[in-house]
Amino acid sequence: MKLYATPRAPNPRRVLMFAAEKGLRNIELVNMELNSLQHKQEAFRAKNPMALLPALELDDGRVLSESRAICTYLEGLAPEPNLMGRDAEERAFIEMADRRMEWHLMGGVINCVRHTHPGLAPLEQPQFPDFGRSQGEKMREAARWLDGELARQPYVAGDRFTIADITAFCALEFARGLLKFQPGAEGMPHLQAFRDRMAERPSSRM
Amino acid sequence: MKLYATPRAPNPRRVLMFAAEKGLRNIELVNMELNSLQHKQEAFRAKNPMALLPALELDDGRVLSESRAICTYLEGLAPEPNLMGRDAEERAFIEMADRRMEWHLMGGVINCVRHTHPGLAPLEQPQFPDFGRSQGEKMREAARWLDGELARQPYVAGDRFTIADITAFCALEFARGLLKFQPGAEGMPHLQAFRDRMAERPSSRM
Ligand SMILES: N[C@@H](CCC(=O)N[C@@H](CS)C(=O)NCC(=O)O)C(=O)O
Ligand SMILES: N[C@@H](CCC(=O)N[C@@H](CS)C(=O)NCC(=O)O)C(=O)O
Repeated sequence: MKLYATPRAPNPRRVLMFAAEKGLRNIELVNMELNSLQHKQEAFRAKNPMALLPALELDDGRVLSESRAICTYLEGLAPEPNLMGRDAEERAFIEMADRRMEWHLMGGVINCVRHTHPGLAPLEQPQFPDFGRSQGEKMREAARWLDGELARQPYVAGDRFTIADITAFCALEFARGLLKFQPGAEGMPHLQAFRDRMAERPSSRM
Repeated sequence: MKLYATPRAPNPRRVLMFAAEKGLRNIELVNMELNSLQHKQEAFRAKNPMALLPALELDDGRVLSESRAICTYLEGLAPEPNLMGRDAEERAFIEMADRRMEWHLMGGVINCVRHTHPGLAPLEQPQFPDFGRSQGEKMREAARWLDGELARQPYVAGDRFTIADITAFCALEFARGLLKFQPGAEGMPHLQAFRDRMAERPSSRM
């Protein structure tokens, strides 16, 4: 298997962290250079017509894209430790938590960065900076809500580590790097403590 | 079980159509009035803190939100006909197809409508009409790509009906109603034929 990824981008990072938590070591990493727009060229579009990363090429040549779908596949390959739920009911509640992180936290960060950061102009055309800033505020609203959740429970989906923690952490790290977002400094101590606990996991250094 | 939904909105419609395909009849429908902002009040926020529809209240009082997570739960209750994949591998490929519909087709339509339609101003504040129009164009790009896919295969995820068809159809119907989007008139005959085939399914009238 080959994983097409790019350093520091939040969606590929979710998959790398997920694979590391599973102890999967038979994935060859192919690093793509986003700035050179290598991923928009025909060779990669033949693998993922959406021209986005990550994408996982299976040994039979089929290609899976969409970070969460790739995780579903990896969970099938390496069921333990379970990160997405043991039965349909638990899978549904973890999917809810993960999607909340994806839409409200990660989505806000990504929209904000893509529409306000000059470095992202080659990828996001046209940029709408006012929209981007407003998305940054919506991200902070979601972060404040999450801070309250994490005052009551140790992990995003409840009492155990799941894919939803990975999504939240990758969103927070992207916001820290590109928006200088520090939950602790903005009155969200539980979210800061969560981020710091996650950063201690070896998988966070993938 | 109680499903909090609202007529004509695309995300609740996905769940209603999914439940109808499963033949699930023990779901009580609670219609919420979006314009009166009933879903933003404390009573509903206690059920779904994101203040969005749909939400499924289980008999034990727990509430699931996020349309796709609700479908995962319903697939567990009523496994046949299978709409989300029989094993992890098939689940992953169907999830990829479904997410492509959600991010690129449904996402574009919803952003376009929410940011350009005066009727949506109570829900989307602030509106960014230029961003909305640009999202409408990105939606059309995704639609053109999908038209090509549907020239080769009968369903969005391949050769059988799945949740990805439901997501695509609900996005197309919302675009038809609010953006007057007609794939056939815009040179996408396969997408139009797909839409017309889906509209013949009894579940599409839910
Ligand atoms: N919904 C996709 C999103 C993938 C995505 O947007 N990836 C970004 C990197 S985080 C990318 O490839 N950007 C390149 C571009 O926009 O051209 C997923 O979950 O994998
Ligand atoms: N990611 C959510 C999105 C839910 C959503 O945005 N629902 C819309 C109706 S289609 C809504 O409740 N809008 C009310 C509002 O924006 O205040 C899902 O998949 O269910």
